[in-house]
Amino acid sequence: MRPPSVAWPVRRLREGALAPSEEDALAAEEPLEIRLDGRPLVVTMRTPGHDEELALGFLVDEGILRPNAEATVATLRNPLDPAHDNIVNVAAPPDALLRHPASRSFHASSACGVCGQASLEDMARTFAPVTSALALRHEEVLALPARMRAEQSVFDRTGGLHAAALVDRDLRVACLREDVGRHNAVDKVVGWAQRARRLPLGEHALVVSGRAGYEVVQKAVAAGIPIVAAVGAPSSLAARLAEQAGVTLIGFLREKGFNVYAHAERVMA
Amino acid sequence: MRPPSVAWPVRRLREGALAPSEEDALAAEEPLEIRLDGRPLVVTMRTPGHDEELALGFLVDEGILRPNAEATVATLRNPLDPAHDNIVNVAAPPDALLRHPASRSFHASSACGVCGQASLEDMARTFAPVTSALALRHEEVLALPARMRAEQSVFDRTGGLHAAALVDRDLRVACLREDVGRHNAVDKVVGWAQRARRLPLGEHALVVSGRAGYEVVQKAVAAGIPIVAAVGAPSSLAARLAEQAGVTLIGFLREKGFNVYAHAERVMA
Repeated sequence: MRPPSVAWPVRRLREGALAPSEEDALAAEEPLEIRLDGRPLVVTMRTPGHDEELALGFLVDEGILRPNAEATVATLRNPLDPAHDNIVNVAAPPDALLRHPASRSFHASSACGVCGQASLEDMARTFAPVTSALALRHEEVLALPARMRAEQSVFDRTGGLHAAALVDRDLRVACLREDVGRHNAVDKVVGWAQRARRLPLGEHALVVSGRAGYEVVQKAVAAGIPIVAAVGAPSSLAARLAEQAGVTLIGFLREKGFNVYAHAERVMA
Repeated sequence: MRPPSVAWPVRRLREGALAPSEEDALAAEEPLEIRLDGRPLVVTMRTPGHDEELALGFLVDEGILRPNAEATVATLRNPLDPAHDNIVNVAAPPDALLRHPASRSFHASSACGVCGQASLEDMARTFAPVTSALALRHEEVLALPARMRAEQSVFDRTGGLHAAALVDRDLRVACLREDVGRHNAVDKVVGWAQRARRLPLGEHALVVSGRAGYEVVQKAVAAGIPIVAAVGAPSSLAARLAEQAGVTLIGFLREKGFNVYAHAERVMA
């Protein structure tokens, strides 16, 4: 069974120009709320499919559910989002539990951008849309990864770090951070701006070394960053949030090309 | 400033044999506890460095701390781990807070393997060590990624999915799952085994498409999986946990080579 993907319009840089919108497939990303005996335990950003196994595996991996114990698993409807089955409840007899977690004590995500949002309803928290008039030319966008790499005083020799860089209108790297966690690298950049009293970052682009999931775009929105450029693929929810929040989302940014998934008006010829 | 790395002994496959141990550099991964006004709020797995900016950025990105607000940030000693400054406290006046999160309501990680472990002390939770006598020959290890790919009925065309596969002694893929979140893909595999009453998975190897952080090894330990093989780099904490918990950890697994970071006795000539 193929994991679900979401059709999304993309504009590709081709022969020096942004081609008209074509349909692309993005990895599906949606929140799943896992409940234990009816109590919300965790919201995780996941690709839909095998949700009940995800819930069972999470409970075993966290040392809550006894391996091979009997448990009744059910997928529930989300009343606010009837199109999606985004709640799984695991009902377990007392002797199936190795420990009793506090209600809502977990907040996992592929992302952690939803940490603290203990139920699907809470995820509707809205941010002020980003309205900056910043724009970059094609060649400036193409130069972003090299600018990021040039700023890395010592190239990551471990192969295990994500990088996030804040680049200004003149393509200067204002701040660069590296971390095993992509979301940490972005938090460190935003924390640098907070300390320097430079928020919102309406005149900067955020460049990330890997993929762009929901959490990268969410943090950019929180910091007022108008352009997010990722070397890797965006997720469906990242594209949806970028579109709604006024953020330009660029993905698959390589030396010779890139794709624009939202707000292409900030990318000039 | 170069992000810290941790020296770790690695054995590389070279000309058909595992070379003696050499020192390698792994991306440093350690837990950081973020406190708000003295109350533990979140534990995140991060690369040490710029920790106070990480705490500030996290609070801004979650809509808790007002952008550019005054706040006093301090790094505290962890009494259980005096060698590391793994606690940051942010003290903010009431008007600097946009909302008051419930104490210990967040659990972020690069990983989410530590979700629910609300303080550093809780992270000492121990698992039974993995003692399986399973072993694989070099050529069998080298064949693992191809086995995983062959099982993917439709190759991931989005470029945005992580894969996790459970491979048995005869190199058959027992279960394969894909997800935007690496940890979700592994949870889905373990949940499949839970449902099939096949835990512990002492006769299987776990293959993951990307990097191996702490959470991948932690979940393998929970499921009793003796061999973890990652296409990408391991983190320092992944290697340390694998060593302690009796798990063979293989990284940078490519068509022609791989590195062994822990328990090489399960890799035979």
